[in-house]
Amino acid sequence: MNEALQIRDHLLDELETGVRTGEALIRLIRPEDWSYRPQDNMRSLSELVRHLALVPRSDLAIMREAGAEEVGAVEESLNDEFDPELLASALRDSFEQYKAYLLSLDLHEWMTRSTKAFYADQGHTQIQWQIETLTHLFHHRSQLYNYLKQRGHELHFSMLYM
Amino acid sequence: MNEALQIRDHLLDELETGVRTGEALIRLIRPEDWSYRPQDNMRSLSELVRHLALVPRSDLAIMREAGAEEVGAVEESLNDEFDPELLASALRDSFEQYKAYLLSLDLHEWMTRSTKAFYADQGHTQIQWQIETLTHLFHHRSQLYNYLKQRGHELHFSMLYM
Repeated sequence: MNEALQIRDHLLDELETGVRTGEALIRLIRPEDWSYRPQDNMRSLSELVRHLALVPRSDLAIMREAGAEEVGAVEESLNDEFDPELLASALRDSFEQYKAYLLSLDLHEWMTRSTKAFYADQGHTQIQWQIETLTHLFHHRSQLYNYLKQRGHELHFSMLYM
Repeated sequence: MNEALQIRDHLLDELETGVRTGEALIRLIRPEDWSYRPQDNMRSLSELVRHLALVPRSDLAIMREAGAEEVGAVEESLNDEFDPELLASALRDSFEQYKAYLLSLDLHEWMTRSTKAFYADQGHTQIQWQIETLTHLFHHRSQLYNYLKQRGHELHFSMLYM
């Protein structure tokens, strides 16, 4: 296989690790955790989890140049959801949609097609977007890990790899 | 340029974004923040910052198959440091060492040389290590962002990109 496409797969594998371990963290949430908010100017745990579950799906909409309204609709699509199992599944689905799009691109499109977020002046190539989505997902998975620790869950960092 | 090497550079650029924004967060730390620890079973802010500053350097030692003692010495090398400017510089130096190693590899070595962490049974190729270091750094940068918010710093998420 072409080396660049091998790297694309390594990047998807790492994103899948974030998704798999993110699902495991979401499944630990207890009903009394949902309203936890570390500070007034921070997301509540429910807001954070819904955002995390939609990172691949909303990033995909943005990199496909959806407008603000369409992206907003994606971002609000889980606003009434409190079931850990359904939120974990939503994260998985969101990843599967993202992965299918990436795999649909040929090497040239992936490396050179530049697309612009509705809020941005400059475009990114699809590979650049893929790298940004990876760090975006790990950023919020990390926050979820911290929130749960602060709520007294006994977590070990090996959970972030398993 | 070969496509795979372009991706290597995109990955280094994203790591540099984590480092640059990590430096900016470190520079915001006030003397009274250092001892903050959200929970007994979590790192204090000083422990977290020292760990973050050394992520590229200790990951580099590990991927170059250093033993536990050598890696431990790297991990303890900032244990008495409380100067934000010096800790920000340490993160930058740590990144520069990491980047120089990555750029010293030829394409074949980068894609296929497998190395084993002292604590692991299975090896990873150098490109796989590079992706893991990227998500590792963003994981701890995210924690620092949360700690500072919880300490009352007024932060905007655009700081994570600037």
